[in-house]
Amino acid sequence: MLTHIDENGDAVMVDVTDKEVTERIARAGGRIYMSREALSEVLSGTNKKGSVLGTARVAGIMAVKRTSELIPLCHTLLITKAEIELVPDEESSSVYCECTVKLTGKTGAEMEALTGVSVALLTIYDMCKAVSKDMTITDICLLEKDGGKTGQYVKG
Amino acid sequence: MLTHIDENGDAVMVDVTDKEVTERIARAGGRIYMSREALSEVLSGTNKKGSVLGTARVAGIMAVKRTSELIPLCHTLLITKAEIELVPDEESSSVYCECTVKLTGKTGAEMEALTGVSVALLTIYDMCKAVSKDMTITDICLLEKDGGKTGQYVKG
Amino acid sequence: MLTHIDENGDAVMVDVTDKEVTERIARAGGRIYMSREALSEVLSGTNKKGSVLGTARVAGIMAVKRTSELIPLCHTLLITKAEIELVPDEESSSVYCECTVKLTGKTGAEMEALTGVSVALLTIYDMCKAVSKDMTITDICLLEKDGGKTGQYVKG
Amino acid sequence: MLTHIDENGDAVMVDVTDKEVTERIARAGGRIYMSREALSEVLSGTNKKGSVLGTARVAGIMAVKRTSELIPLCHTLLITKAEIELVPDEESSSVYCECTVKLTGKTGAEMEALTGVSVALLTIYDMCKAVSKDMTITDICLLEKDGGKTGQYVKG
Amino acid sequence: MLTHIDENGDAVMVDVTDKEVTERIARAGGRIYMSREALSEVLSGTNKKGSVLGTARVAGIMAVKRTSELIPLCHTLLITKAEIELVPDEESSSVYCECTVKLTGKTGAEMEALTGVSVALLTIYDMCKAVSKDMTITDICLLEKDGGKTGQYVKG
Amino acid sequence: MLTHIDENGDAVMVDVTDKEVTERIARAGGRIYMSREALSEVLSGTNKKGSVLGTARVAGIMAVKRTSELIPLCHTLLITKAEIELVPDEESSSVYCECTVKLTGKTGAEMEALTGVSVALLTIYDMCKAVSKDMTITDICLLEKDGGKTGQYVKG
Repeated sequence: MLTHIDENGDAVMVDVTDKEVTERIARAGGRIYMSREALSEVLSGTNKKGSVLGTARVAGIMAVKRTSELIPLCHTLLITKAEIELVPDEESSSVYCECTVKLTGKTGAEMEALTGVSVALLTIYDMCKAVSKDMTITDICLLEKDGGKTGQYVKG
Repeated sequence: MLTHIDENGDAVMVDVTDKEVTERIARAGGRIYMSREALSEVLSGTNKKGSVLGTARVAGIMAVKRTSELIPLCHTLLITKAEIELVPDEESSSVYCECTVKLTGKTGAEMEALTGVSVALLTIYDMCKAVSKDMTITDICLLEKDGGKTGQYVKG
Repeated sequence: MLTHIDENGDAVMVDVTDKEVTERIARAGGRIYMSREALSEVLSGTNKKGSVLGTARVAGIMAVKRTSELIPLCHTLLITKAEIELVPDEESSSVYCECTVKLTGKTGAEMEALTGVSVALLTIYDMCKAVSKDMTITDICLLEKDGGKTGQYVKG
Repeated sequence: MLTHIDENGDAVMVDVTDKEVTERIARAGGRIYMSREALSEVLSGTNKKGSVLGTARVAGIMAVKRTSELIPLCHTLLITKAEIELVPDEESSSVYCECTVKLTGKTGAEMEALTGVSVALLTIYDMCKAVSKDMTITDICLLEKDGGKTGQYVKG
Repeated sequence: MLTHIDENGDAVMVDVTDKEVTERIARAGGRIYMSREALSEVLSGTNKKGSVLGTARVAGIMAVKRTSELIPLCHTLLITKAEIELVPDEESSSVYCECTVKLTGKTGAEMEALTGVSVALLTIYDMCKAVSKDMTITDICLLEKDGGKTGQYVKG
Repeated sequence: MLTHIDENGDAVMVDVTDKEVTERIARAGGRIYMSREALSEVLSGTNKKGSVLGTARVAGIMAVKRTSELIPLCHTLLITKAEIELVPDEESSSVYCECTVKLTGKTGAEMEALTGVSVALLTIYDMCKAVSKDMTITDICLLEKDGGKTGQYVKG
């Protein structure tokens, strides 16, 4: 049963009032493929000051905090940790992104982690699009979550 | 040259003061893969009231308007049209999303279209995750853009 | 005594530091009157995809979460449930809106429920104004609240 | 035809790309009824520092600027003027609110004026609710608009 | 060691998951110097209704609640009290601002208090700049904080 | 005459409808003083990845775009350029910040430049406060503006 749909099929924010406050963690990943030219500029940018990856990291962290403004039925949560890891990969000409979110609350941090990944990768796209528009953001998924009634999930 | 990085490698918002105000359009696409069980509930939900797709459509349109708050170096733009198309596909057990954005301004709507796609797909994820967490958001890319100095781009 | 005004008559955010964290609920209602032509299109739209009511429902839920950004002296709260009910009434040619908000916190959800009703009704207005501008949003009031020191209130 | 619903009944942001940029103005009104005790405190507050009305005025003006974030299908507009007028009326034990919005753009300021009225009245409610919860926000409607293809509208 | 920088020097939001929830308070101050002409208009404005100071007070309180949206690595907090005090000083032709913030949470309210002061003073600047642009915002600092592991701090 | 105060002393957003659309530029500056220990960590951080200054730069640029949400009577503007320059100074143990904003519109970019400086400096404060709280943000002022009816201003 889709928990966001009531008996009439109308969207509702799931009632979590009676859920326990527990420590929760979620980790999501994703990747952006770009031209070798774009990637080499990202990398050379890194030695100068790493603007692309540094800016994407900040954008992703800020997006984590605003997830409930973007995703209509998400609950507002008090994030206790948000981290964005960005790993350029020359072989596949891509940048891999992983976002880890922790919080203590009544509902999980999955959407926050996925939103952090999405916005970090969109920021890389934005900063590289002058070089080449042939970029693809892909494989955004939940890697792991823990805490709360449903317990641990690890991407199989 | 990465236009968002100045000579010191610091992030800057590109100066578009002298760019022409022209009509610009951008179209981006992406897809979310989910379990057959999740998709069948999205589809049956559609019969009832289309909550999942309807909610995702609204979320995507609203995100288009907030792109410059999320992507650090994006310019604020006056969007003149935003449209989200969502196409469930039972064969591949996925929902395809396309976002078309139009504006009259000094810089393009690429990031707005990509952000609309990302948030619409994240919203579908959020509403289906109670059924199954094995979902992947993928193939987010620019399909077409037109207007402005660089002229037309069509994904080859 | 107006609790938002200190001894000098200056606006302050009431200090709720020492208030107890309790489960709180608030329910508010309101109505929009429109032309029969506008209402019949809302209703036929409902058959097709319920866009007007579906969009208003999402807008109302999202507004509930942003109440403290709009109402200067409201505290930020962790909403645990938000629900918007919309009931078209052909006899009076209007749509009735009710918003229920629950949270666990130090202060009540009255303003959140009233803001949800207001924005849901404004969204209906926005989507129908091309048909006829003779619409009125009216009777927005608190129906019920419970939880916290002042206890239960039911509109007499 | 509801201009926010496309042929499939899905919500879309109306395409205003080809609309003319003209000067537009909208004026909306509304009223909040409250107990005599609450109104007398608003009025005495006015003598001291006018906190209630002053705060509501600022909240309304700020809300005008954020209308497109709240109303899903509203276009972002460059407001050139926003004014909130608040008139306490002891005879009816109420406060009347009028909001005037001007802009130069491709679409009108109706929703901005109505949102300004709504948030100003909600702010008054918030600041008076400790005195008495028996308040009603009512008669929110468009009084006048001008500019754009549809030309002038004056509430009949 | 800068707690916002991990071993690679990347920005991260500090993990406060294991920190205790305690009552925390922070008090920050700052000052804006302006021309005597500007100050005298602020003061005369006061008898009418002190729009400048009243508006700045509301702006500061609202900014306190949005600190985590502005400062990238700040945690979202549930503010339980926010107060802005504004003291015009004719002798030095300036307005002094003090902001006190209280909350119950896992991390302190320093940044919220400093942001409240900054935005209140910027608002005064905005409202006076038509009279004279020779204004300076200065001496923004933390005056006192208490609560949490590091305990009390009082500016020496 | 304070242009933000109408004849009743109420706050209003100045009507700029009839102002000319011109290219406008504003440049503001400010400084944060910190302990030598804090500054040396900012500088060593710079070698590693420049997190503190890089993060502050992004925060300042993002704040420029949100100025009209923070300063109640500011008009929303379409920024065409925003740049934050940060210059550490070991002799005075401080970091100097300068923000340049350009736009094409009906009103100037002064407040945007001042807000960019303020938020960039607050971000530095946030990232260094674990080292030492004895920091002061000071000398925030307009350095130069041009464009619009009042023409050029250069701090004397």
